[in-house]
Amino acid sequence: MNTEIIAVGSELLLGQIVNTNAQYISNNLSDLGINVYYHTVVGDNRNRFMEALKIASGRADLIITTGGLGPTMDDLTKETIADFLGLKLTLHEPSAQAIREFFKKRGRTLTENNLKQAMFPKEAVVLPNNYGTAPGAIIEKDNRVYIMLPGPPFELQPMFSNYVIPYLAERENQKIFSRVLRIYGIGESAVEETIKDLLINQTMPTIAPLASYGEVTLRLTVKCDREQDPLEFIKPVEDEIRRRLGDAVYGIDSESLEIVVAKLLEEKGLTLAVAESCSGGLIGDMLTDVPGISKNFLEGAITYSNEAKIKRLGVKPETIESHGAVSRETAREMAVGITETTGADIGLAVTGIAGPGGGTVQKPVGLVYIAIAMNGEADVDEFRFSGDRKRIKHSTAKQALDLLRRKLLNI
Amino acid sequence: MNTEIIAVGSELLLGQIVNTNAQYISNNLSDLGINVYYHTVVGDNRNRFMEALKIASGRADLIITTGGLGPTMDDLTKETIADFLGLKLTLHEPSAQAIREFFKKRGRTLTENNLKQAMFPKEAVVLPNNYGTAPGAIIEKDNRVYIMLPGPPFELQPMFSNYVIPYLAERENQKIFSRVLRIYGIGESAVEETIKDLLINQTMPTIAPLASYGEVTLRLTVKCDREQDPLEFIKPVEDEIRRRLGDAVYGIDSESLEIVVAKLLEEKGLTLAVAESCSGGLIGDMLTDVPGISKNFLEGAITYSNEAKIKRLGVKPETIESHGAVSRETAREMAVGITETTGADIGLAVTGIAGPGGGTVQKPVGLVYIAIAMNGEADVDEFRFSGDRKRIKHSTAKQALDLLRRKLLNI
Repeated sequence: MNTEIIAVGSELLLGQIVNTNAQYISNNLSDLGINVYYHTVVGDNRNRFMEALKIASGRADLIITTGGLGPTMDDLTKETIADFLGLKLTLHEPSAQAIREFFKKRGRTLTENNLKQAMFPKEAVVLPNNYGTAPGAIIEKDNRVYIMLPGPPFELQPMFSNYVIPYLAERENQKIFSRVLRIYGIGESAVEETIKDLLINQTMPTIAPLASYGEVTLRLTVKCDREQDPLEFIKPVEDEIRRRLGDAVYGIDSESLEIVVAKLLEEKGLTLAVAESCSGGLIGDMLTDVPGISKNFLEGAITYSNEAKIKRLGVKPETIESHGAVSRETAREMAVGITETTGADIGLAVTGIAGPGGGTVQKPVGLVYIAIAMNGEADVDEFRFSGDRKRIKHSTAKQALDLLRRKLLNI
Repeated sequence: MNTEIIAVGSELLLGQIVNTNAQYISNNLSDLGINVYYHTVVGDNRNRFMEALKIASGRADLIITTGGLGPTMDDLTKETIADFLGLKLTLHEPSAQAIREFFKKRGRTLTENNLKQAMFPKEAVVLPNNYGTAPGAIIEKDNRVYIMLPGPPFELQPMFSNYVIPYLAERENQKIFSRVLRIYGIGESAVEETIKDLLINQTMPTIAPLASYGEVTLRLTVKCDREQDPLEFIKPVEDEIRRRLGDAVYGIDSESLEIVVAKLLEEKGLTLAVAESCSGGLIGDMLTDVPGISKNFLEGAITYSNEAKIKRLGVKPETIESHGAVSRETAREMAVGITETTGADIGLAVTGIAGPGGGTVQKPVGLVYIAIAMNGEADVDEFRFSGDRKRIKHSTAKQALDLLRRKLLNI
């Protein structure tokens, strides 16, 4: 089946809300091996919605709509689809009953227009809404399936997983399996160059590169029969990619850099302390997003002022005077200092210029030093990041976590 | 002008990412008084994208595409649009130069396919990309405007506000002006109750409430002629809302809590130090997103372990033993401790249980204490937040910043 998702609602076209329903549905359909070729968003406008239905029915055989099932005048999804398919709406008594009870339970009085939500073509399979008053519906006509779902995600999602997924799984005999390889330290185009031949010859699995925030991901996707094991197809290609990219492949699926670092710290039984200047606490924030990190992450110091670097970390005033707060030497003393003052096995320190002010010709905005200390010794690397203040902080934090990851791999 | 936004990218149809670009663009266009009638999402597929272009050019006169401008083989937005409009791509030397410098600056080697990003029809107005390698473009043809923007939001957003908005504003004769009032500490329904009459009688300006992450915003929007002053319409309504909601209105437009706190610290000439346990550095991260904060934000301590609380902040071991690390007393000693050890005028401290583990019946996940210290005295408040670990950290940080804001207002 190939699918088009049509979201109905002017609030989407005004940018008041983002179309998370399309993502949720697409994600679930891809797990079922059902292709989605188009998303469409149209306002609460009968003619334009009718137009969208004509186009969709010409290019998709599964059409899923979200929104426009409510009681108000501008909720016109069912009415328009019924017209489009030449069907009549009649009162669906079980739904009407459910709506009456819904209001009774809440001691609210039922207004006439609420029963509008119980009107369906008699050809429709009505989907109960356990979290609101607007039921959904499935209509099969002319070899096409039309599924109408409510707009609020907390109503749509349970309806989708309880009723729509079983209905669709029934019709499909295939499944899709994806594995995402997460890569840091190589640009998207360099990754592509390295695996060009694999990309050109890709069939099973398909390989989709995606770049975001200094990372690259490769999504390996296999579509196979229910009873086959998709990993049989994925494994050989994954192994070949890992052979070529080496350590740059840091994780799979939803493993973030901080999760991988946390795992490595736990495996190696090492403790960490972090001294942050330009990243301002972001590294600590990312690490502490990982449940259970408290066993290995002892402490962080956001040493923003020079005084703090000197007092907290024992950076020498002369070092800051002669080399500056943003320097290889200061980074080194920060990293060594945080290990010595906290007793952690490893110290990570960053100092740099996040901007927009504070840059000079010799030390431009984006200049960052990252140091990792162990046993009184520290390695320091220099980086030049671009973008605005937030972006530079973000790049700094990710780069620092990746350096730490590579260090831990070799311990 | 009526607009269609076409997002190009299979990752959207697979549900890997959500189409936030469409929201961002729609939101900005509505501020310009430009209608958006359709959003379309299509995969990295030449034929289906061509199909989408045909349909869009039949129903819109402004067509904005996002994504598909990158260096890889499946980036085909420019190529397809050029074909569709019967235009040829040639190397745009300034862009090629910018890309070469971008790589030089990072010490990365330029691969051939990167220059693909500098290919444009000579009819195009090329839009520089200050945060990535893929420039955008504007092409006017047959009374239609085609605007191509990169996919990554951090590249698209500055390009849109720096180049596209001025270009579009030039063409429009009306203007829309919005002011967003930002509210913290009152729920959405309570806000609506308080200004019900204003919401019912709204005309000029219109008032749109929106709730997100514990905040409520009210968007006041006026559409008027170029030469009129929209504030004349906004001001009286804004004043009335402020009169009713008081201190809960903390800022306007893009003023975040951290920006407001930073301003207040500067106005009052006070210095701040922060001690974070459960928020793990998030408060420091938020504060240091504000340019120039270094004048007033001296230092942060991410005292995750008990040892750190004792050693860094001088929390008494007995206090942690008898009351626990998550307690009113520990929060108080953390706040007083961070002021005394840093010499800051104000100390902010948080300790709590972010979960998922570590909760008990007496001290459930989500229990958080926030303390603010001045002159050796500290006020402590108790909160019970819900949601997952990240959500609890986020609620903690925002609540802490709001308490600090209210404290500063009364100094």
